[in-house]
Amino acid sequence: MNEYPAPRVVIEDISPSIDCGRFPIKRVVGQHVEVQADVFADGHEELTVVLQYRPVGTGKWFFAPMKHLGNDKWQGWFEVACVGEYEYTISAWVDSFGTWQSRLLKRLEARQDVTVELLIGAELLEAASRRAPRHDAFKLQDYARRIRQESGNGTPPEVSVSAEPRELESRYPDENLITTSTPALRVTVDRERAGFSAWYEMFPRSCAPEAGQHGTFKDCEAWLPYVASMGFDVLYLPPIHPIGMTARKGRNNSVTFEKGDPGTPWAIGSPEGGHKSIHPELGSLEDFQSLVDSARNHGLEVALDIAFQCSPDHPYVQQHPKWFRWRPDGTVQYAENPPKKYQDIYPIEFMNDEWESLWQELRDVFQFWIDHGVRIFRVDNPHTKPFAFWEWVITTLKQEYPDLIFLSEAFTRPRVMARLAKLGFTQSYTYFTWRRSKWELLEYITELTRTDLAEYFRPNFWPNTPDILMDYLQEGGRAAFEARLVLAATLSSNYGIYGPAFELCVNTPREHGSEEYLDSEKYEIKHWNVDSPTSLRPLITRVNQIRRESVALRQTNNVAIEHTDNDMLIAYRKWDEETSEQLLIVVNMDPRFRQAGWITLDLNALGVSHERTFVVEDLLTGQTYEWSGSRNYVALDPSRQPAHILRIATLSSAAPGATQASGGTR
Amino acid sequence: MNEYPAPRVVIEDISPSIDCGRFPIKRVVGQHVEVQADVFADGHEELTVVLQYRPVGTGKWFFAPMKHLGNDKWQGWFEVACVGEYEYTISAWVDSFGTWQSRLLKRLEARQDVTVELLIGAELLEAASRRAPRHDAFKLQDYARRIRQESGNGTPPEVSVSAEPRELESRYPDENLITTSTPALRVTVDRERAGFSAWYEMFPRSCAPEAGQHGTFKDCEAWLPYVASMGFDVLYLPPIHPIGMTARKGRNNSVTFEKGDPGTPWAIGSPEGGHKSIHPELGSLEDFQSLVDSARNHGLEVALDIAFQCSPDHPYVQQHPKWFRWRPDGTVQYAENPPKKYQDIYPIEFMNDEWESLWQELRDVFQFWIDHGVRIFRVDNPHTKPFAFWEWVITTLKQEYPDLIFLSEAFTRPRVMARLAKLGFTQSYTYFTWRRSKWELLEYITELTRTDLAEYFRPNFWPNTPDILMDYLQEGGRAAFEARLVLAATLSSNYGIYGPAFELCVNTPREHGSEEYLDSEKYEIKHWNVDSPTSLRPLITRVNQIRRESVALRQTNNVAIEHTDNDMLIAYRKWDEETSEQLLIVVNMDPRFRQAGWITLDLNALGVSHERTFVVEDLLTGQTYEWSGSRNYVALDPSRQPAHILRIATLSSAAPGATQASGGTR
Repeated sequence: MNEYPAPRVVIEDISPSIDCGRFPIKRVVGQHVEVQADVFADGHEELTVVLQYRPVGTGKWFFAPMKHLGNDKWQGWFEVACVGEYEYTISAWVDSFGTWQSRLLKRLEARQDVTVELLIGAELLEAASRRAPRHDAFKLQDYARRIRQESGNGTPPEVSVSAEPRELESRYPDENLITTSTPALRVTVDRERAGFSAWYEMFPRSCAPEAGQHGTFKDCEAWLPYVASMGFDVLYLPPIHPIGMTARKGRNNSVTFEKGDPGTPWAIGSPEGGHKSIHPELGSLEDFQSLVDSARNHGLEVALDIAFQCSPDHPYVQQHPKWFRWRPDGTVQYAENPPKKYQDIYPIEFMNDEWESLWQELRDVFQFWIDHGVRIFRVDNPHTKPFAFWEWVITTLKQEYPDLIFLSEAFTRPRVMARLAKLGFTQSYTYFTWRRSKWELLEYITELTRTDLAEYFRPNFWPNTPDILMDYLQEGGRAAFEARLVLAATLSSNYGIYGPAFELCVNTPREHGSEEYLDSEKYEIKHWNVDSPTSLRPLITRVNQIRRESVALRQTNNVAIEHTDNDMLIAYRKWDEETSEQLLIVVNMDPRFRQAGWITLDLNALGVSHERTFVVEDLLTGQTYEWSGSRNYVALDPSRQPAHILRIATLSSAAPGATQASGGTR
Repeated sequence: MNEYPAPRVVIEDISPSIDCGRFPIKRVVGQHVEVQADVFADGHEELTVVLQYRPVGTGKWFFAPMKHLGNDKWQGWFEVACVGEYEYTISAWVDSFGTWQSRLLKRLEARQDVTVELLIGAELLEAASRRAPRHDAFKLQDYARRIRQESGNGTPPEVSVSAEPRELESRYPDENLITTSTPALRVTVDRERAGFSAWYEMFPRSCAPEAGQHGTFKDCEAWLPYVASMGFDVLYLPPIHPIGMTARKGRNNSVTFEKGDPGTPWAIGSPEGGHKSIHPELGSLEDFQSLVDSARNHGLEVALDIAFQCSPDHPYVQQHPKWFRWRPDGTVQYAENPPKKYQDIYPIEFMNDEWESLWQELRDVFQFWIDHGVRIFRVDNPHTKPFAFWEWVITTLKQEYPDLIFLSEAFTRPRVMARLAKLGFTQSYTYFTWRRSKWELLEYITELTRTDLAEYFRPNFWPNTPDILMDYLQEGGRAAFEARLVLAATLSSNYGIYGPAFELCVNTPREHGSEEYLDSEKYEIKHWNVDSPTSLRPLITRVNQIRRESVALRQTNNVAIEHTDNDMLIAYRKWDEETSEQLLIVVNMDPRFRQAGWITLDLNALGVSHERTFVVEDLLTGQTYEWSGSRNYVALDPSRQPAHILRIATLSSAAPGATQASGGTR
């Protein structure tokens, strides 16, 4: 076969594609990857364009057709069926036989003599037959023979314009003339929980049944029914390792500590061990294993906090002095953000002469907990460690354990957060925690779901964390907690709360202007009364139940902002293509006053008739409303219920001839 | 030196960058390349970011600093000083000493003891000294010694916080810790005419002094003063080769020709020769050479039309039968767009078994005319030949002759036109020819100048061509020609007309609904009376003069659309950063009626005071107007003058205390 300099078809601007294919996009099992590209050749012939995909490491490509959307833009899709890594690429070639058929029809319409044309068509089929296996080769030759035989008859044979020979011919293109885009693009396929999860953060040491006692893993087990009953599926524990004594912080982050102060769990390491050890007062490794197993029986997965930093008492400091930065005075550099000092924490020096042994050891920390049944890790401050480390450690671990989930706790600049998501973190903390106005929230959700971020950055929305008590919660009280819960749980398919501080509406800051909690659990053992009658437990339980029963709330990128004429009312729709489920969430952002207004809905997008009433049901209360037309009235009183989660009934479920109701929800 | 796994700094999203660096951007000599990128590292240290650039093939990189714009976006620029190809890339590293200095200042403000810190700073300078050549190494060691000596004194020495050691240290980063983006991105640097040119297309055979005669190159020479006097700088000739007899087209594209019909110049080739020969009636190769030389003396460059297709009589058909597509009946496939047939044209089959000899021969066609002094080629229908051919032929030719200019005549789909520009065409025909409404034009100019196209697609605006007499010219007459001229010549720095049909306002179509000229010059010899008193020659001359005197009109991407409240009035501003030149072009798109309206100007962008009047001068008429404020009145009567080219006087030139004028231009 003669080699041509390059095939004629050009493939450009493939999407999705992150940084020219440097990074994979993300999906969960069963999701679709919709691929678009500009595909064209010189001249005016028709093209065949196919999408190729396969799990990485398997030899065989699967094929999906791509269709022309217009303006040389082609589109196709495939489904990712198994956890791991997929790759995809596009192949295209000039469809000579298809072009010949289309032109033949035009010639016939113009009543031109097509005798020679038919011979050309037969030659094209014969050429394909030489590339086909025996059975199809016979068929192609047969088509060609029938066309040849009747070429001089004036009327061409039916076979020359039918679909069968075209379809068969298209399976055997000349490989020298195929363009295949390079490099193949990749998809990280995660298990479902990577895309849909409700996290509950809890300090095990505060789980003791009696105040003043240090909680244990055994005590935690007693809490599992409580956490599970609220509908959470991830139980996230702050670091469970031995806590250092040197420079231990006292209550409220005091630089001096008093006897009995437990220190912060993030000051990891003592003579009793480091990142692979358990703080003795929490129990044994067996107790931990038992907690993990019991949690699983309650539908909960335990997530561990991985904070790669050391207390001065960590065994690493003695055993691996090169892993730290030493100062000219013979001391180890502690953490600083000048002029602030964190004397109880030694950062690890990742780029040291013994970096290979360090990186292997840190990988082994993950491996150790994986060996004890943990598959979800919340990673503390990954943005202060080298990107290359994270890419290496996540990639190598996921090769062996593709079901691992890593949550990036990087509250830092946008590009850095995005990079960590690109290089492998499964989920990411976000700015949601600080976005309080309607405008800020809508802008942020648009950025997350309508830009490239939607392909690789999976947000996990947290209304509070042990570090962050946002001013809105401080000022707004219970209604603010309710509003933030509904926003987090319905805007993002992954969300979490730091409890029981959240459900108990704990909102006193250490001082005015601070977002630290007063008497923060980071520095002391708490004793929580979760049976308080004012607990948000019923609302949380209902919200998580709605999430589990809704397909639309299992996704994040399927959000459409709906117009309201009141800046304190935020409204957005979430839908599911397959089931036609349509939810409308409306939240009163004002925690003090009743707010009312008109919502303008896109009825076409909703699949709702313009002429008939339709029923919306508030899934939080069970109450139903009859609405009609695109504009409907909503009123929300924060003292009673600051949010609606409305299910919009399908057309058929609206009672025919129903009387026109006022449409208000109050 | 210990090797680290990867440097800490990340460089992302470099712009400009076309298709991940697959194609170069374009500039002309002396222009700037402004480069932006996201650059960041883990942690919170400061970075040094530099732009590197060089002419390809030279060893030495030049460096330009990049500055932080915020949000991890960095910016820098360089100038391209010579014709050819440049490359650029970005290098970045953590600025340890700079970070140390900044933190030292914070520590000093907080009155912390800095004894040990000073020793650390000295160590950083000493480390740099080991990477520096002797002279600078001494300096760095000296800085370090002075810092060390006074480290215990309580107050740090001035040298520890001064700029000199920081600047010197930054010259000697640890190469293992530098991130350099790959691949290097490229710039095609063309000579000035690639970015600023006025083309005049003329059929040499219509240049005879007497009607009915076949014009010659000698006759053309007599036309040079006329063309040059109008201010054009490129004289573009349709194909000058022998024209075939077989299936020659008659007048008005008739399939039968009569004796004396000259045929179309695009039916190239006869027994007298092909693409390297001259149609005998035009003269000899020496005559052509003389025309090229004379033209140069008039400030005109001759551009040739390269149309890679053959008449059935072309010598290639006999000598290289494999270069054509043969049908089963033993005939050569002629050009078709079924059911339309072009029996006088054989397309070349680029992907044939002897493609290498074909491609070499076609390259030689360019080489032949290059050897005869031609440096500008208008390429006919490049979109019907393989992209790979154009990329190869343009790249190899420009390696030897970087001053070559190729104009792509691809009136086809957007992606195909863009691809041809990417792969090497210097300028491109555009949809301007058909964009008639204000809305269409503004949308198109925005697409050309505000998307990636601005980096590689240099538009060349043509109000007419021998193939295209747009309906607007047919209907609008003289005023339409005037309006289109001003639009073409001021929107795009490259433009051209097909004359003398244009300046004589020839506008009769072959039939209603056709955009072909009646009695088209493509099929017959014309005799033009360019001395007609109604010729647009004076306007064309003035417009080209304004273009030459204006810096703003030498660029295309520097256009800002200005609001008018009348949809028949289009207004746009062109400016030059360096000279502060500001032009405002206003065109009445209605060729029949006077149109008036208010223009809203961005006075801040103009550098004009809100409180004072300012003077605008119409460069077409010399008339001046006093305007004030952001809204000013304009009226244009197509029977008198359908356009303004207004120069906005700088602030200082407005007479202080001038009386407030009405501001109208009529």
